Amino acid sequence: MCLSVLSSSSMMRSMRRGFFCSSAALRWEGGVSMVQGASRGIGLEFVRQLLEKNDKGHVIATCRNPDGATGLLDLKKKFMERLNLLQLDVTKESTIEAAATSVRESYGSLNLLINASGILSIPDVLQPETTLTKVEKSSLLLAYEVNAIGPILVIKHMWPLLKVGGGSGTERKHSVVASLSARVGSIGDNGLGGWHSYRASKTALNQLTKTISVEFARKKDPIVCILLHPGTVDTDLSRPFQRNVPKGKLFTKEFSVQNLLSIIDNAKSSDNGKFFAWDGQEIPW
Amino acid sequence: MCLSVLSSSSMMRSMRRGFFCSSAALRWEGGVSMVQGASRGIGLEFVRQLLEKNDKGHVIATCRNPDGATGLLDLKKKFMERLNLLQLDVTKESTIEAAATSVRESYGSLNLLINASGILSIPDVLQPETTLTKVEKSSLLLAYEVNAIGPILVIKHMWPLLKVGGGSGTERKHSVVASLSARVGSIGDNGLGGWHSYRASKTALNQLTKTISVEFARKKDPIVCILLHPGTVDTDLSRPFQRNVPKGKLFTKEFSVQNLLSIIDNAKSSDNGKFFAWDGQEIPW
Ligand SMILES: NC(=O)c1ccc[n+]([C@@H]2O[C@H](COP(=O)([O-])OP(=O)(O)OC[C@H]3O[C@@H](n4cnc5c(N)ncnc54)[C@H](OP(=O)(O)O)[C@@H]3O)[C@@H](O)[C@H]2O)c1
Ligand SMILES: NC(=O)c1ccc[n+]([C@@H]2O[C@H](COP(=O)([O-])OP(=O)(O)OC[C@H]3O[C@@H](n4cnc5c(N)ncnc54)[C@H](OP(=O)(O)O)[C@@H]3O)[C@@H](O)[C@H]2O)c1
Repeated sequence: MCLSVLSSSSMMRSMRRGFFCSSAALRWEGGVSMVQGASRGIGLEFVRQLLEKNDKGHVIATCRNPDGATGLLDLKKKFMERLNLLQLDVTKESTIEAAATSVRESYGSLNLLINASGILSIPDVLQPETTLTKVEKSSLLLAYEVNAIGPILVIKHMWPLLKVGGGSGTERKHSVVASLSARVGSIGDNGLGGWHSYRASKTALNQLTKTISVEFARKKDPIVCILLHPGTVDTDLSRPFQRNVPKGKLFTKEFSVQNLLSIIDNAKSSDNGKFFAWDGQEIPW
Repeated sequence: MCLSVLSSSSMMRSMRRGFFCSSAALRWEGGVSMVQGASRGIGLEFVRQLLEKNDKGHVIATCRNPDGATGLLDLKKKFMERLNLLQLDVTKESTIEAAATSVRESYGSLNLLINASGILSIPDVLQPETTLTKVEKSSLLLAYEVNAIGPILVIKHMWPLLKVGGGSGTERKHSVVASLSARVGSIGDNGLGGWHSYRASKTALNQLTKTISVEFARKKDPIVCILLHPGTVDTDLSRPFQRNVPKGKLFTKEFSVQNLLSIIDNAKSSDNGKFFAWDGQEIPW
């Protein structure tokens, strides 16, 4: 049903990767998952599906302002025991360290870390550039700090917990780190130009993630590190740019996250350091 | 002679690209070239060869502290009329704007811009990371500011001059922007990990340059924008890491710059947005 937007060849690929649109239980049932950047959009939807599609397992949802995160507070009412809200702003490393300490004390390990936070535009602060003339240092730095440095510092501080966790308590052999990148971060795929700050920040996130994945593999840590492009998804982030999206190409959060969870669920050691689109296709660097 | 370090297949490729180790005149003879980051190392060698291999043509050499740039001051004695020293710190946009104003008033246009500035390590400030545990926000930001943002802001402010210049006064059809990247900035080629800050900054420089090249092409500006890997070159930048370099793989500045100038000299419109190693081979993103 929801596969109807897939072409037949990508459908075959997707089926090989074990995609499905059922609400079957996921493999990390019983494990501990963290979704970073969970107040809204794709991050919030990850939290919802991780809770609703599993009978067991704990989800730690982090965001800048838990008290104002109405979507998370609603889920908290329903999943009191299994959902844990923590404050975390990726631009403040002390909040990342505090979250790591809290997870260590409460659970001792992590089996899944999803970095979903990200910025593209902020009124009066950050505008995706349409030309080199509009490129400003402040925008380049801000996007880099939030989109590239932020997720990497989160991985840095969660690393010991992910190493302890591995696949234990789940049906897999390793823990997974999945960071939300974007197809526009691909240099090889860049045929349109523009969006300098956002593009460069996601490209750097890709390089940093690849660099980290090499170390994890060399140290034989039971962690698989991947990058994900969710498609163009109907969220606050894409809203100002949706009029340019071809009909049928604007995904719901539900559809995108269902597909991304299938990729995460099926991630193999050989996927470590790779960059996948929502349909399981690898994206060139 | 100096081709002896090339493999036979890369030698063929190099010959097709018109590589040579003679001191034949270069095609921008008569044009106006700017070398940004010219106080030492590869940048200084570019200035020297541009002056010594041409009978005509003006070279603008920019650096943070012209009064202390002894190599440039020596060249200035010999090439009083053709060499112009300007102060420029890529982290201070006002100095970039001032340099652009000065070039506009003195020459009215530019035919070649070489971005040679870059940092890898600075004692007590910046150390190439050997593990994720050592990754610090301050290092990531500093490398990004100098290695990625800096060259892009220089291109931004020199753009109008490069557009006016094109190939006029030279034997080519377009002006050239060549920015020094590094092979370790390639994500596809990253098999070793480490050096997170430097790698990510060069990867971002690659993406930003690609983004700019798309705009130049769409606007039919007579500018070709390329990225260059100089090889491992015997300069202050590589010195702390030279003991790991295989014998015969540490190039002199003279050899590297001779090869890079051949690439620049032979750059075609179809090279716009591409990333070349010193031997003319394209490097994957
Ligand atoms: N939507 C798309 O079409 C699309 C396409 C490609 C890639 N992506 C990527 O997918 C990810 C999720 O995007 P989305 O569409 O869900 O965006 P969104 O609806 O705008 O949500 C962005 C999330 O990032 C959080 N965030 C922003 N700055 C933060 C910071 N400093 N610290 C912690 N969290 C921060 C926001 O929290 P607050 O509520 O506190 O602001 C919010 O939860 C992003 O990385 C985005 O780049 C999205
Ligand atoms: N050497 C290699 O093996 C190698 C390999 C791959 C890529 N590269 C790249 O090639 C380029 C040249 O490297 P190199 O080996 O010649 O390095 P180098 O000898 O260390 O010279 C670096 C140059 O960058 C300048 N610089 C640093 N910060 C600056 C700033 N804020 N504003 C303006 N200029 C600044 C320095 O000026 P000051 O004198 O004022 O410090 C110096 O002229 C770099 O981009 C480097 O990343 C080099």
